[in-house]
Amino acid sequence: MSSTITFLSDFGLDDEFVGVVHGVIARIAPEVRVIDLTHGVPRGDVRAGALALMRAVQFLPEGVVLAVVDPGVGTERRAIVAETEFGPFVGPDNGLLSPAVAMVGGARRIHAIEEPRFRIPSLGATFHGRDVFAPAAAVLASGEAKPEDLGPEVDPDSVVPLLLPLPEVGEGRIVAEAWWVDHFGNVELNVGPDDLAAARIDGPVAVRIGTNEVVVPVVTTYGDVEEGQPLLSVDSAGMLALAVRGGRADERFNVAAGTAVVLTRTEGSTPG
Amino acid sequence: MSSTITFLSDFGLDDEFVGVVHGVIARIAPEVRVIDLTHGVPRGDVRAGALALMRAVQFLPEGVVLAVVDPGVGTERRAIVAETEFGPFVGPDNGLLSPAVAMVGGARRIHAIEEPRFRIPSLGATFHGRDVFAPAAAVLASGEAKPEDLGPEVDPDSVVPLLLPLPEVGEGRIVAEAWWVDHFGNVELNVGPDDLAAARIDGPVAVRIGTNEVVVPVVTTYGDVEEGQPLLSVDSAGMLALAVRGGRADERFNVAAGTAVVLTRTEGSTPG
Amino acid sequence: MSSTITFLSDFGLDDEFVGVVHGVIARIAPEVRVIDLTHGVPRGDVRAGALALMRAVQFLPEGVVLAVVDPGVGTERRAIVAETEFGPFVGPDNGLLSPAVAMVGGARRIHAIEEPRFRIPSLGATFHGRDVFAPAAAVLASGEAKPEDLGPEVDPDSVVPLLLPLPEVGEGRIVAEAWWVDHFGNVELNVGPDDLAAARIDGPVAVRIGTNEVVVPVVTTYGDVEEGQPLLSVDSAGMLALAVRGGRADERFNVAAGTAVVLTRTEGSTPG
Repeated sequence: MSSTITFLSDFGLDDEFVGVVHGVIARIAPEVRVIDLTHGVPRGDVRAGALALMRAVQFLPEGVVLAVVDPGVGTERRAIVAETEFGPFVGPDNGLLSPAVAMVGGARRIHAIEEPRFRIPSLGATFHGRDVFAPAAAVLASGEAKPEDLGPEVDPDSVVPLLLPLPEVGEGRIVAEAWWVDHFGNVELNVGPDDLAAARIDGPVAVRIGTNEVVVPVVTTYGDVEEGQPLLSVDSAGMLALAVRGGRADERFNVAAGTAVVLTRTEGSTPG
Repeated sequence: MSSTITFLSDFGLDDEFVGVVHGVIARIAPEVRVIDLTHGVPRGDVRAGALALMRAVQFLPEGVVLAVVDPGVGTERRAIVAETEFGPFVGPDNGLLSPAVAMVGGARRIHAIEEPRFRIPSLGATFHGRDVFAPAAAVLASGEAKPEDLGPEVDPDSVVPLLLPLPEVGEGRIVAEAWWVDHFGNVELNVGPDDLAAARIDGPVAVRIGTNEVVVPVVTTYGDVEEGQPLLSVDSAGMLALAVRGGRADERFNVAAGTAVVLTRTEGSTPG
Repeated sequence: MSSTITFLSDFGLDDEFVGVVHGVIARIAPEVRVIDLTHGVPRGDVRAGALALMRAVQFLPEGVVLAVVDPGVGTERRAIVAETEFGPFVGPDNGLLSPAVAMVGGARRIHAIEEPRFRIPSLGATFHGRDVFAPAAAVLASGEAKPEDLGPEVDPDSVVPLLLPLPEVGEGRIVAEAWWVDHFGNVELNVGPDDLAAARIDGPVAVRIGTNEVVVPVVTTYGDVEEGQPLLSVDSAGMLALAVRGGRADERFNVAAGTAVVLTRTEGSTPG
């Protein structure tokens, strides 16, 4: 009853860290397949890692999720496994797993990972991806252990949540935030189509970033505007994104993850 | 009768895009193996992606090729599958597949990918790698569908070709172009050994790039020149490349993909 | 009796080189699994590649190791396979394999890789990863060939060693070197815990880099110092590393691989 492990981290690919985690898993559970979701999460950026996992999880094969973005390694933060309908989620107790766990229906139970039998003894204390999380994911995926074998159950209320910034939605106006800039320069906002509706914005939108303001159409797809023109549309994760056809919105509008973005109804728009 | 999918894109590895495509394939066809050819094609650079695929295809296991460099996503460009001796090639109809398809003997038939049953329904329209191309590749690799199940046959003459720049070959002179600079700074030209022969150049070559001109020997391998010296040789893809032993030719000669490079016979050379 | 191939190189991931090596292996030995250790070794940096392989090998599944960091490609350097308890190590004869081979108990025998039957004929002479090393690794992993089938045995004393810089350990003072800066900015030194003991340093250490000197505590883990504070601790590879909790030691102290680092006992320390 072996299954797949999907693996996300901020380890980057320049060092051998990711390969070593694959090696540890292959030694413990040679028949388990590992899918690399990404290892390009910005270093220590728990929120960025959590958002990536949340966006991806519905497209992954059921099984074990192994996620390591762990700026608190070497401190008292716990290692946890959250049991879900999808499968067990393994990672640090710092909010990284929370949005994706919620997305698949929440955790039935959460256990701390403490059992020394399923850890790799190490002189150093800094590579829990290798020594703690990878062995846990491997024994869960192979069926050698169940979550309750890894350590004591913990109070769900004691688990660190991830605080995501919500947009402020008012009449004709949304105070929002860029929360992801992708490889192509598209800027995803923390705004869904329902927020636009709630603000009764349904025509072109005035987008203010810093001291700049531009009016941008809300369209279905890139092809609805001319080459080089900006647009707002629902992106592949179902959120509103600012993009430029054939260009980079992040550079055009000088936006990075975390930048404030204010959307305002324009005179051209017709409140529903 | 499941087979391998070889996957090339310009998605980069910083986001979860590549991992999500792996996830989609694993959900549909868990037994299919995916080989990542590269995801480092420059963003939207169809020619660079097409050349990489063309150089690689003879070294790949037969099966499905999934290639996504798709600056026209969200416009009217078609998604296609080209049937070949090698296997089906899946990607956008923008020329990306053409040189590799030609390399394996051409397409027997080409179908548009339109069947909704093999698409992932999505709010957004921007991630066809996940929603259109990955499911098509997966059902082809698993044997669940044949190309004709994916959509109507299209006229081969309607498929977008890739226009590759040909060198101008004259007596003792070739006006060429750099069309690939690799990780090591080697500069591949759009010139084959036969072009050198046709220009009756067989000794040291005067290489002019911008306002600089240097005389460079044509050798078999790096070891034929001293450390730090430039050379022209046939590279691993069978094309003429400008290199520097132990150094970077791109930096030495200020060349990027697309730079014009003029090769001229020198007095030292003896026309055959 | 097929096994796993673990693959390390300096090919980077922007070109199709790594994917082509996977393709070559999959054509020859479709049932063999390939684990990518890393392809981010700095270009041509044999020492960095050798150290990464040495750090990783104990965590890898037994089988074939394929390592290609090969600045001498196209010169007279040999291709070799070293038989070990762990499995065969395949790579260039330039010292790349030596520390990892030593780590697993040394080579029983070493063969040159010369047999044309197991090479891919190529016009060019520059991609031995594809044409020489990958086929050798594939036939070894599949059991199609044994090391002695690949070429003549070579004298172990003729194999190129890797010269690693040893620290100079004196009373209360170690003249050391940074030999790895990882993705997180941690700086591993060529100093083990035993070297500290030999120098009779067991309290805070004065660390001199260039003209700067700071006193840094030797601790077990990041949690033992405050956020933003520097520390020395034994890292995940068992060596002494300079780090900054929540920060980058390489930037704070302006260190790169190869930088000299002098450790001196402080008055606060109590010689054992």
